[in-house]
Amino acid sequence: MSELFCEGEYALLLLDRRRRYLVKLEKGKRFHTHRGFLDLDQIIGRPEGVAIESSMGVDFYVFKPSLWDYVESYERPTQILYPKDIGFILVYADIGPGCRVLEAGVGSGALTSFLAYHIRPTGRVYGYDVNPRFIEVARRNLERTGLLGYVELKLGDVYKGVDERDIDVAILDVPSPWLAIDPVYRSLKPGGFFVSFSPTIDQVEKLVESIEAHRGFIVLNVLESFTRSYKVRRGETRPETTMIAHTGYLLFARKLSLQF
Amino acid sequence: MSELFCEGEYALLLLDRRRRYLVKLEKGKRFHTHRGFLDLDQIIGRPEGVAIESSMGVDFYVFKPSLWDYVESYERPTQILYPKDIGFILVYADIGPGCRVLEAGVGSGALTSFLAYHIRPTGRVYGYDVNPRFIEVARRNLERTGLLGYVELKLGDVYKGVDERDIDVAILDVPSPWLAIDPVYRSLKPGGFFVSFSPTIDQVEKLVESIEAHRGFIVLNVLESFTRSYKVRRGETRPETTMIAHTGYLLFARKLSLQF
Amino acid sequence: MSELFCEGEYALLLLDRRRRYLVKLEKGKRFHTHRGFLDLDQIIGRPEGVAIESSMGVDFYVFKPSLWDYVESYERPTQILYPKDIGFILVYADIGPGCRVLEAGVGSGALTSFLAYHIRPTGRVYGYDVNPRFIEVARRNLERTGLLGYVELKLGDVYKGVDERDIDVAILDVPSPWLAIDPVYRSLKPGGFFVSFSPTIDQVEKLVESIEAHRGFIVLNVLESFTRSYKVRRGETRPETTMIAHTGYLLFARKLSLQF
Amino acid sequence: MSELFCEGEYALLLLDRRRRYLVKLEKGKRFHTHRGFLDLDQIIGRPEGVAIESSMGVDFYVFKPSLWDYVESYERPTQILYPKDIGFILVYADIGPGCRVLEAGVGSGALTSFLAYHIRPTGRVYGYDVNPRFIEVARRNLERTGLLGYVELKLGDVYKGVDERDIDVAILDVPSPWLAIDPVYRSLKPGGFFVSFSPTIDQVEKLVESIEAHRGFIVLNVLESFTRSYKVRRGETRPETTMIAHTGYLLFARKLSLQF
Repeated sequence: MSELFCEGEYALLLLDRRRRYLVKLEKGKRFHTHRGFLDLDQIIGRPEGVAIESSMGVDFYVFKPSLWDYVESYERPTQILYPKDIGFILVYADIGPGCRVLEAGVGSGALTSFLAYHIRPTGRVYGYDVNPRFIEVARRNLERTGLLGYVELKLGDVYKGVDERDIDVAILDVPSPWLAIDPVYRSLKPGGFFVSFSPTIDQVEKLVESIEAHRGFIVLNVLESFTRSYKVRRGETRPETTMIAHTGYLLFARKLSLQF
Repeated sequence: MSELFCEGEYALLLLDRRRRYLVKLEKGKRFHTHRGFLDLDQIIGRPEGVAIESSMGVDFYVFKPSLWDYVESYERPTQILYPKDIGFILVYADIGPGCRVLEAGVGSGALTSFLAYHIRPTGRVYGYDVNPRFIEVARRNLERTGLLGYVELKLGDVYKGVDERDIDVAILDVPSPWLAIDPVYRSLKPGGFFVSFSPTIDQVEKLVESIEAHRGFIVLNVLESFTRSYKVRRGETRPETTMIAHTGYLLFARKLSLQF
Repeated sequence: MSELFCEGEYALLLLDRRRRYLVKLEKGKRFHTHRGFLDLDQIIGRPEGVAIESSMGVDFYVFKPSLWDYVESYERPTQILYPKDIGFILVYADIGPGCRVLEAGVGSGALTSFLAYHIRPTGRVYGYDVNPRFIEVARRNLERTGLLGYVELKLGDVYKGVDERDIDVAILDVPSPWLAIDPVYRSLKPGGFFVSFSPTIDQVEKLVESIEAHRGFIVLNVLESFTRSYKVRRGETRPETTMIAHTGYLLFARKLSLQF
Repeated sequence: MSELFCEGEYALLLLDRRRRYLVKLEKGKRFHTHRGFLDLDQIIGRPEGVAIESSMGVDFYVFKPSLWDYVESYERPTQILYPKDIGFILVYADIGPGCRVLEAGVGSGALTSFLAYHIRPTGRVYGYDVNPRFIEVARRNLERTGLLGYVELKLGDVYKGVDERDIDVAILDVPSPWLAIDPVYRSLKPGGFFVSFSPTIDQVEKLVESIEAHRGFIVLNVLESFTRSYKVRRGETRPETTMIAHTGYLLFARKLSLQF
């Protein structure tokens, strides 16, 4: 038994691995592609994984979108994090159901969405951004994926401090993370994880220097990650020709207990 | 307010990023390192992040172990997956609270542990292995991390079929994944994710070929991932000299609905 | 004292690291760019490294082109090798002045040009291709760089054998290198280097298997190489966002003496 | 016809791709390995590529060492450059027969050897080092490979200036390359290449900043390179498990003509 597509929900139309379209299923509507249009009525009431024929006779496969499918289609006024970085953060900073996570530099809400998805149902994400427009975009994006209920979006400057205490993990994606060291220290519980994502190595260097001067954390790791996709077919298997060379550096630290 | 260390639980003793020890806190016991011994009584009743002095006057920081800290210390009769691969799987295959995940090739239970951690509290992991010894090791490892309650470990051969149906994600880490295509197909719900981890490119090639012949899935991506750690210090910042060049290739596919 | 630019020779006009133009200096001619035109007369008689102002007031720097500058501007009916691969071949296969090199799959003549440049003045490159058009293109390209005198271009099929004997290094860039193992064996001197460049891993696998069956070579190494460029500026230093993920795999072997 | 091994010359004994030994052929001597000893008399008078049986019945293949074989066996008081970096420098900085190359930071003479090999017979390498011990080691190493005749080794500090003028390429492998910008500028011909190798990104950043303040060069590229080796065998093909993650960053610039 599988759930069928309902009117009003989103569907992922997949032609091949590159051509993927996120579409809201509305009665009587058509979705136009360069391979002909699809009547969305054809999808409503059908199960996942069926092939829908376009007006040009091309088959599109229809799926419930994964969270990453949603995030890829997000309205994006900012650069977003990629699965390679998001996944590493989840694993390395021990983020799972029940965690209380502080995020500063919410941007488009991509990482926020994954945090919300993984701390469900009892955890909570506190997401700060100084830009009211980003807060609005992130709210819309989270609403569409049904994850807004797990997130408290807050217009505010992490450099000036945050309200939350006893946080499990604090994640920064801000231009001057060193200005947030003390606010992060105060918000985290002892042993809590401090994660920072920075596009430039200079930011990481300055952050490490400032953390060492502050003495409230121990740095566990600084790293970058890569993924390389392959074209696989008997006799023609090879990596794709280009890849993302850089998104940013990840720093992981844990909070020390100074006053004991 | 933070939780204090109790007798009987595990603590992570951290000298620096490479020298980390997972220790069970037992009254009256000493833990010996090349930098002197530590009286474990010193840790019981203290909060996370405190410094404990060894008999040689060296400070060790004490933390509640993260899941990855536990997994790194697992009894390991088999090669385990690393955070870069585990994290990518979590994100890309949409694994979160409530998911029903089939895993074949449980091995030491490293990936199993992360799956269990992330599908809590309402999901379930069904873990198969043909080797009774691995099932026993995985059971002990999962017990130690308190995650065994979310996992059903089963001695059995995925090539011959599995009992479960309506599975959200099926993950294979087996030598001949192409032999498991039909069992995986039957176990997954429509649209379900099929993930396979393989050390050699030949395995991936044969798997893709077999999936295409089976026609029950659409392949989304085949990729490998890397992480590179840095030594960061003002004026001396550079990547570490060596890195892991290869663990394995990841294949992601989704199940099609053939009979509609 | 430096050499000055003469009429009829080529100059490299450099706006920045990406915008580089190779131009033949002809009296009375103009070179048009999106930043205005340059009177080529301004360059003739000037030394390298001077700034030439365009009609829009933008400075272009003028240099004698390096061999790579020439090769980048080659007429290219085929994919060419990149510096990372060319350089590795030069070093690892011991190619230098005086070497006698066999190349099969000359294509556009990019690698041929570097071989010719490095075996000067006493060595020789024997370049085969089955496609008469490529032989013509390679001839024109080599002529422009003044290296044709070191190369014998031959229309012919390496799979069917080559005329040369006592070759120091044989380099293949052909679709089925395993068909050329015996011709390469006969052309090389004992101890000579056999290099093969292949875009797919399947080609490498089949080649290794065939070499091992032939028993006339020992395989030294199979590898791939990467380069990643950086944007460097105080406080903004980071890798470029994208990179070439793959060109091809390099195989290096040396010829054994079977009959002693 | 091939050249035979003579008494007094070096031979490379190859068991497999990892176990390679450079041995001087002396009459009546034995070479001991963990797989038994070899009588070196067996090699003298034989051609390259023959198999020599050890006392334990194991076959070693014998080759004339490539330059890289020699360099790998060099006495090495310092870190040396690897083929990936050496090759890239040769190609990108246009180094070939006849070039006049300045090298500062000769160290063990690894790069020096390749420069000497490639500028033969009419070019020249001017190699500076401030450490008399390194100059001595480099001299011994270059002597062994027969390349000393193409190199002028000089005890001296590039920061204080060099004697040479009209140099084609200047290559620095020194801790503070920014202190050598003006000496390099004065030694190079207009349009000449300035190459710097630095292990840390901070060095590159400071160098770029200083070059831009000096205004005598245009920076072409800053990059790092990688190589990844493969184990290739039908059905088992995969990258080696570990790789070198970092050697250093390469900067390439060309000299401008300021006073025209």
